[in-house]
Amino acid sequence: LPGVRLRDVGEFGLIERIERLARGSPLPRSVVIGIGDDAAVLRPRPGEDVVLSTDAAVEGVHFRWDVQSPRVVGRRALVAALSDLAAMGARPLGFTCALAAPPSLVVRRVDGLASGLLQEAARHGCPLVGGNVTRARETSLTLAVVGAVPRGRALTRRGARPGDRVCVTGRLGAAALEVERARRGLARIRHVATPRLSAGRKLLSLRGIGACIDLSDGLEADLDHLLEPVGLGAEIDPARVPTPPRFAAACARLGLDPEALALAGGEDYELLFTLRPSAPPSAGLARRLGLPVSEIGRVTRRRSAAPRRGWRHF
Amino acid sequence: LPGVRLRDVGEFGLIERIERLARGSPLPRSVVIGIGDDAAVLRPRPGEDVVLSTDAAVEGVHFRWDVQSPRVVGRRALVAALSDLAAMGARPLGFTCALAAPPSLVVRRVDGLASGLLQEAARHGCPLVGGNVTRARETSLTLAVVGAVPRGRALTRRGARPGDRVCVTGRLGAAALEVERARRGLARIRHVATPRLSAGRKLLSLRGIGACIDLSDGLEADLDHLLEPVGLGAEIDPARVPTPPRFAAACARLGLDPEALALAGGEDYELLFTLRPSAPPSAGLARRLGLPVSEIGRVTRRRSAAPRRGWRHF
Repeated sequence: LPGVRLRDVGEFGLIERIERLARGSPLPRSVVIGIGDDAAVLRPRPGEDVVLSTDAAVEGVHFRWDVQSPRVVGRRALVAALSDLAAMGARPLGFTCALAAPPSLVVRRVDGLASGLLQEAARHGCPLVGGNVTRARETSLTLAVVGAVPRGRALTRRGARPGDRVCVTGRLGAAALEVERARRGLARIRHVATPRLSAGRKLLSLRGIGACIDLSDGLEADLDHLLEPVGLGAEIDPARVPTPPRFAAACARLGLDPEALALAGGEDYELLFTLRPSAPPSAGLARRLGLPVSEIGRVTRRRSAAPRRGWRHF
Repeated sequence: LPGVRLRDVGEFGLIERIERLARGSPLPRSVVIGIGDDAAVLRPRPGEDVVLSTDAAVEGVHFRWDVQSPRVVGRRALVAALSDLAAMGARPLGFTCALAAPPSLVVRRVDGLASGLLQEAARHGCPLVGGNVTRARETSLTLAVVGAVPRGRALTRRGARPGDRVCVTGRLGAAALEVERARRGLARIRHVATPRLSAGRKLLSLRGIGACIDLSDGLEADLDHLLEPVGLGAEIDPARVPTPPRFAAACARLGLDPEALALAGGEDYELLFTLRPSAPPSAGLARRLGLPVSEIGRVTRRRSAAPRRGWRHF
């Protein structure tokens, strides 16, 4: 097997391999028709809206074979897509994977990608229900995830108001630090984030949630996605942005600025959301979500002219 | 504009261009949240299942800039994806487009791709509701289409039985003939098929439909997709396979075998389906579907040992 390449097994041989791997996972009742037809058929519950997102992972752009195992590439690709469902408060129903790859790609790498995808799929109850395979010059995975959310209740990017408290789940910066280590040849990329699906669904049922987004591009960029379209700004206290234990020391050893990594580094896949001033304190929220929740600043009417010292203004 | 490339407008500049183009089309009520959030939110009617399919068009594999306009590439990409919904009897709700492209790609080509997608989207009531943009070595579009079908009623590839009549809509071979012409430098590719969405939905409401698939790979290959998984065969009369007017003469001028093009050529995007022996005659069916319907053979228990002369056995 080690030397077998895609051109040796062909398109249908490849599809059969992936189908065989996928058959290992039992299908939930929400999958009426899975892999193998012209399209998949999924069944939301009565009174649910359907949530749809797509995301791609491209060789040389989002991943490199020399610093990541194919399994990690597959796992991270599905996590990135599921994180968009989490940000809407949706539960996953299923996903499709469009694989593009050169005929010279070794089949073992595809097996690794597929088993990484299927591992995360099983973990989050989001079965592989279809896909596409095509030849291309570089390898890429383009996923489409479908979920469901109670009718009219999806969390959106659009709900922020002046005075809202800005909150974030978990801790930021670990993913960016690992990428820096890999860039310097000090470590391989092994970390796979947890998409905050359960936290997103719990946020849905709370009063006082404004806007919500997942942190894929980095805190600063994603906060801008929440504020810019509605013409608002924010004051963020970098000292309150939560980082993992011993993060500052690990950054110092590499000559990196921990604040820059936590504020601008991407791929943490935590949830960033705003809470109305009257909403309960974030401590109680953390208990309900089963995750750290940090209040890191406030939504403002516009970029403040005289910034408070140490605060970042957007 | 002519010389402007993707690297000049950047990722967000590009997304803005596509959003601006998309804003020209009004959104149906089934789109609760469209472009611009972490995910789209779509609303099927009560009692409907959700249908999901993905399809890719890759530069150098599925299209070439020198024989097709970007608009035709975009139109054909969405038609191919919608055809999978048609084969399930689904009505479209919306689609996402993941675009991968080199930074050197001229922005005009992306505008052309997008306006082709949006033209077909408007024609078939399937709005663009989200997407993704990434750098890659070659240009590709990966679409995910979502539709809806009455609960438990989706047409599938699995329903064929021995004795079923094999039927096909429309006429076959025109797409393959055009590809042959383009290959010889005699013509550009301009033809865009019509996905048989309305016919697929009408088939749903008829008694006596066995299996259904859309013709993307070619009659022989797609018939095999219907029969091989259920262990059946078929006898097909090539003389009954419908072709466009003056097709044989056009093939003769190029030294091509019309039967081979009609039976093995792909991308016709007609529907191939089986009818129970007791179902009404295909003439009445043609009237109801508003399309030619040809009965081209029968499903058999297995590959016949002594084939009838002139019939193809699968």
